[in-house]
Amino acid sequence: MSAEPHASTHSTQKCVGVWRGSERVAGLDPADRGLAYGDGVFETLLAHAGSLPWWPRHRARWMHGAQRLGIAFPQDSLLEQALSDALQWQPNGVIKLVLTRGAGGRGYTPGAALPTLVVSVSERPKTALPALSIDVLRCNLAEQPVLAGIKHLNRLEQVLGSIEAKERGLDDGLMATSNGHITCSTRANVFACIEGQWRTPPVDRAGVAGTARGVLMDQWPELTVAPLTHGDLQRVEALFLANAVRGILPVGRLGARDVDAEHTGIGLARALLADSHSGFRET
Amino acid sequence: MSAEPHASTHSTQKCVGVWRGSERVAGLDPADRGLAYGDGVFETLLAHAGSLPWWPRHRARWMHGAQRLGIAFPQDSLLEQALSDALQWQPNGVIKLVLTRGAGGRGYTPGAALPTLVVSVSERPKTALPALSIDVLRCNLAEQPVLAGIKHLNRLEQVLGSIEAKERGLDDGLMATSNGHITCSTRANVFACIEGQWRTPPVDRAGVAGTARGVLMDQWPELTVAPLTHGDLQRVEALFLANAVRGILPVGRLGARDVDAEHTGIGLARALLADSHSGFRET
Repeated sequence: MSAEPHASTHSTQKCVGVWRGSERVAGLDPADRGLAYGDGVFETLLAHAGSLPWWPRHRARWMHGAQRLGIAFPQDSLLEQALSDALQWQPNGVIKLVLTRGAGGRGYTPGAALPTLVVSVSERPKTALPALSIDVLRCNLAEQPVLAGIKHLNRLEQVLGSIEAKERGLDDGLMATSNGHITCSTRANVFACIEGQWRTPPVDRAGVAGTARGVLMDQWPELTVAPLTHGDLQRVEALFLANAVRGILPVGRLGARDVDAEHTGIGLARALLADSHSGFRET
Repeated sequence: MSAEPHASTHSTQKCVGVWRGSERVAGLDPADRGLAYGDGVFETLLAHAGSLPWWPRHRARWMHGAQRLGIAFPQDSLLEQALSDALQWQPNGVIKLVLTRGAGGRGYTPGAALPTLVVSVSERPKTALPALSIDVLRCNLAEQPVLAGIKHLNRLEQVLGSIEAKERGLDDGLMATSNGHITCSTRANVFACIEGQWRTPPVDRAGVAGTARGVLMDQWPELTVAPLTHGDLQRVEALFLANAVRGILPVGRLGARDVDAEHTGIGLARALLADSHSGFRET
């Protein structure tokens, strides 16, 4: 383990280390393409009792995103060392992994840069929240199949959506494509029950293929992947959000009406995540 | 003027300085939201004989972008000092200004962070290129009116477009929205002559409102803003690209056919930029 992680002055996030290729470096190059263009992919993982729930799923999505962008993926030995460092500093919390194409190239065209890896940790957010109050946001998601599903660093839509949700006093907001397909919340996948049938929207034109979503899709045969329109929302009986850090987040209020935050399907989804990893037993 | 700018190890770009709010800092915080989410706006300016062509236009677009994202704009005194430093290191070249929301906030929701300013310089790219060979790229632009026109840091589409252009042996590529509207090249605005009439596509749904484009729109009454479809491209007699660093770039080949790179309209556009600032006399 190396020196104590550097605390960001204005953030709860602490940097565990920065690597250029396989070499540990002192800090981030201001010419890094991650800053210049959002040219990279990231993962946000729960750390629980020194272990990483669903690490193979996170790694697979991260690697798939890197391949989609043509960024070399770090060696396993480097990742193991970096994650070991991170877990020693934050055995219970959140680990963030950012992989960028590195610094170099003329303008948008990449050069032969070594990729950059940034590993940081932060505290686990409060769990056991009350049921969320959400609504559909005015801020839409653009449809871009080439980037859909992966967790790339171009996240301005989510930032603007989060600002809108906060301004409107919402706990989170649902984001729709301009074609009216509700795709996800600003920071989680969405699951809706209509006429007794649970569904989660596809993420092949916008949104992120969440790891919690992947676990639920694998473990819950009755869950289907199906579009969710504005019209469908009027018929929703129950709704929850899910992501890899906060687990299952029941929704109690959707726009102007109440929805059933105690629905049996929400309990089932919680049980499935808890069965999948002990880190989700408390949520 | 401060210490000599730090040369990025794997880039021709040199960092002149990084500021957090009005305070000069040693480097970039790895938790900066510019890296995490592309949460910021940038400008790339020509420096010519110690002056900055079209600085008021660049500043206006940059400020407009910052306002759109809700990021505080730097004080003029700070900008003047930073630009003065940059011009001393690179009186003839390219200056890049990146403004981000800084580090902080929980996830996508911004906190009360001070914005980050990163100023860097690089050499001027070669001018007097031969006429470009371009084609329409397979990589589309997503339509996102909230972000269209401004020069934000979410540039993965341009990166992927540049990679495609390079792989196909093109000098640059035209990018269309999924609705088939040719909007810009990966790094410049596009101007096309059809039946003797010059037009440039609107940038209200995708693309960047270029400064060279703004100069031409103001100085060239016959230039109209009008959509450019795939079908229109079949009828194009002449075509050029323009941006604030390279000026006017005539196109000689569009897909499988030759276009008139010596068209009088291209000469006129060159003369208009040269009249606007001496930095564009050589192009």
